[in-house]
Amino acid sequence: MNNEAKPIGIFDSGIGGLTVLKEIYNKFPHESTVYLGDTARVPYGIRSPETVTRYSFENTRFLFSKEVKMIVVACNTASSVSLEAIRNSVPVPVVGVIEPGAKAAVAATENRKIGIIGTEATIKSNSYAKAIMGLDNSIEVFGIACPLFVPLVEEGWTGGEIAKMIAQEYLTAMKHKGIDTLVLGCTHYPLLKNVLSAVMGESVKLIDSAIETAREIETILKNLSLLNTSEGNLSREFYVTDSPEKFKAVGERFLGEHIQHIKKIELEMEV
Amino acid sequence: MNNEAKPIGIFDSGIGGLTVLKEIYNKFPHESTVYLGDTARVPYGIRSPETVTRYSFENTRFLFSKEVKMIVVACNTASSVSLEAIRNSVPVPVVGVIEPGAKAAVAATENRKIGIIGTEATIKSNSYAKAIMGLDNSIEVFGIACPLFVPLVEEGWTGGEIAKMIAQEYLTAMKHKGIDTLVLGCTHYPLLKNVLSAVMGESVKLIDSAIETAREIETILKNLSLLNTSEGNLSREFYVTDSPEKFKAVGERFLGEHIQHIKKIELEMEV
Repeated sequence: MNNEAKPIGIFDSGIGGLTVLKEIYNKFPHESTVYLGDTARVPYGIRSPETVTRYSFENTRFLFSKEVKMIVVACNTASSVSLEAIRNSVPVPVVGVIEPGAKAAVAATENRKIGIIGTEATIKSNSYAKAIMGLDNSIEVFGIACPLFVPLVEEGWTGGEIAKMIAQEYLTAMKHKGIDTLVLGCTHYPLLKNVLSAVMGESVKLIDSAIETAREIETILKNLSLLNTSEGNLSREFYVTDSPEKFKAVGERFLGEHIQHIKKIELEMEV
Repeated sequence: MNNEAKPIGIFDSGIGGLTVLKEIYNKFPHESTVYLGDTARVPYGIRSPETVTRYSFENTRFLFSKEVKMIVVACNTASSVSLEAIRNSVPVPVVGVIEPGAKAAVAATENRKIGIIGTEATIKSNSYAKAIMGLDNSIEVFGIACPLFVPLVEEGWTGGEIAKMIAQEYLTAMKHKGIDTLVLGCTHYPLLKNVLSAVMGESVKLIDSAIETAREIETILKNLSLLNTSEGNLSREFYVTDSPEKFKAVGERFLGEHIQHIKKIELEMEV
């Protein structure tokens, strides 16, 4: 197989990365993909950096064994704490979700006040703040962990009064800081866009890292002449580490389309 | 060490089992304990039965290596899907949280309509319904999974409007069934007692499986002459599989007291 025809490998701790996969589908109709959801060990957001890095290595090794031409770390927690380690472990380009989101936020802000929402691990790692301040250190960054958002999205309660009240509880302090740009620093959060926008007001720009990551993937694939332009033999594989039923049910809501052939694998056995 | 002086071993997927440990402290001032929170692999409630059983075996093996005189499976999910397998794997008594809760509910109900709330895995397993109907098959059992309750408790939002609205969303249908007894089928839920009671009304009896499990432990220890009546050398050990910081912070809220000396261990390495 020539290099362009090889698939793009994507992993996440679970189903959240499907928002990134969806943008990849949208942007690259001729690219094959291999998606790995580490559902037996989800969520990464509450685990220690050492544990997240160990899991990320195992996921990366698995994707690399599928002869991918690129690895997309479609998980904010793993991108926050393990990206450099992953980059040093494989001879293909590795894209995380933090840098694209940070870049887009810096381009979007006018008053130089950016808010970040994400899991505990993402916020504690300060990775968005570091990435943003690496681009422009005059920008003020405000981060807050929103641990109830992921179960809220997985429950499907993305509209309605409960979602709104939880969003208000988390975001009121940030609103008072006067941010004009809010980074959705978790791959689950694009499904909450409407409620987040309602709570923050229309003047606050929401940065969807799934969309920004797809843009970054395009740049890299073009630069390395790895973009697949020929049609045919498109393959879309799915692997999970726990039973596929829930992944299928919730994942189809994320992806907005039918998921076929999900295969369960055991990663720990490969340690 | 004579058998009575040996510790009671307790495991849970994380911190929830501390509500059971608290009742053990209350009821047995002279018993030593070894608590294992499998925090690297929490939550069990979203995993497949096979995965939960494998984790439960590893936890059991670890506790048994600490020479415990009894094993308490202080996790509804593991009790639901793995209790018989655990019982067959160790030569000490094994107590789960399902049977004591089921027994208490059957004793409490007058109109023979019992509600069960718990994680997805607990509810899907039908283990409470089976246990209750095994005692009295004329009782009607209504189960509902409440996946937002655990993160709500861990966030500390156990009072207030958000907790109340989420509880209403989950429980309204059950209220309409006319149950007179509600089993809190997850070790996190005792911290939501006030809001659950407010939503269900005073006429509905709440069954706290932590309290019922401590009663069952007393019965077994007495029957086997394993109750420790002599003072001195009380030891209270804590082990976790991920970093101890969060366990300590949230766990002290559950336990209502200071937790000292939490040790991190690696279970997967022992497979």
